[in-house]
Amino acid sequence: MSSNLFTLSNPVFSNYAFYGTVVLVKTFGMSFLTATHRITKGIFANEEDVKLFGTRKVILDNESVERVRRNHLNDIENIPAFMLIGLLYVAINPTPNVALWHFRVFAAARILHTLSYQLPIPQPARALTFGVGFTVCISMAIQVLSKTQF
Amino acid sequence: MSSNLFTLSNPVFSNYAFYGTVVLVKTFGMSFLTATHRITKGIFANEEDVKLFGTRKVILDNESVERVRRNHLNDIENIPAFMLIGLLYVAINPTPNVALWHFRVFAAARILHTLSYQLPIPQPARALTFGVGFTVCISMAIQVLSKTQF
Amino acid sequence: MSSNLFTLSNPVFSNYAFYGTVVLVKTFGMSFLTATHRITKGIFANEEDVKLFGTRKVILDNESVERVRRNHLNDIENIPAFMLIGLLYVAINPTPNVALWHFRVFAAARILHTLSYQLPIPQPARALTFGVGFTVCISMAIQVLSKTQF
Repeated sequence: MSSNLFTLSNPVFSNYAFYGTVVLVKTFGMSFLTATHRITKGIFANEEDVKLFGTRKVILDNESVERVRRNHLNDIENIPAFMLIGLLYVAINPTPNVALWHFRVFAAARILHTLSYQLPIPQPARALTFGVGFTVCISMAIQVLSKTQF
Repeated sequence: MSSNLFTLSNPVFSNYAFYGTVVLVKTFGMSFLTATHRITKGIFANEEDVKLFGTRKVILDNESVERVRRNHLNDIENIPAFMLIGLLYVAINPTPNVALWHFRVFAAARILHTLSYQLPIPQPARALTFGVGFTVCISMAIQVLSKTQF
Repeated sequence: MSSNLFTLSNPVFSNYAFYGTVVLVKTFGMSFLTATHRITKGIFANEEDVKLFGTRKVILDNESVERVRRNHLNDIENIPAFMLIGLLYVAINPTPNVALWHFRVFAAARILHTLSYQLPIPQPARALTFGVGFTVCISMAIQVLSKTQF
């Protein structure tokens, strides 16, 4: 139990690093999607942005911008938590194949969540993708709690 | 100093993993509290959610929903930061009992913060619980900064 | 590759811990800046806060408070992601000096981002500081993805 698990020679850690980075980069993509909506539609929240782009005034309630921002907020509620619980899950030395599918399912669910939110696809598509990602995190959390000391 | 501290055989790491997972799961609970308020009161932010539940229109300013969302946002401002500073704190090899109480006090403070926010309990209850959690993080941060290289 | 990199005797990890803690503490500072604006101007989002400070009513749309909150939200979209990608970047054992400058540039960019946002400095100052911090994260992410297994 005292050998080092946080190393690329541990396939579970390597898989964690790969899929974790994928979902973090996907989350960064939300910043650019927000910027694209803001710039193409002239919807800015700060006076200095209005001045830079020569639009007329600050607009805080544009639906297409707010939809991306709600999506982004949902990502930051879920993805850092996945990364942190996932790191602890690596430490309990799970079966590599089981761990790999936890990471793959989470990454796929969050990419589909974004597509469901932004196209948008009728509900309950988004709710289901959220639920799958959430279930992966709870599965890892239960395993971590059962092997650690309080 | 070069032995591996990020292992379950280190009681500090094991305690960190336990209390960290507890507060992350508590944070996940905010998503469900939001959903409960939205569904029981018919308060939805997206057109496709309105359609699924057959309510009349998008509502963005319901106080009970917004109160949970402010609480959730406060969690994601504080709990990932605790987890990340806490991980670095494990790396400086603190006295196990001192570390254990850092983690316990933080977890208790954040659970009481949520109760103070949602019941709600009159101020300054919420401010005090926020302050205690914050103080734990700053205590760990100072110790990390004093033992690392810039 | 299987030696332990997550230890203070690895200068890359030590530098990561230092600059990571600096940006996390900076992010915590946003909570206090919000509180300062709220208390000095009497702008509160919760009824119990209004009661504590004896102001007249809840105010949700004050520009100076909302500016700090947008800044804070931008921090929590970027800084935990930096910390998590940075931790994985430590695991791929980068050249110490290259890693040190990744961390330093990110920390400097995020401190300048806050100054640009709060003074405020005319655009594109804030956009540039955001872009520099983002570029550091993407640089680390590409290196992590190229060395891990999917």
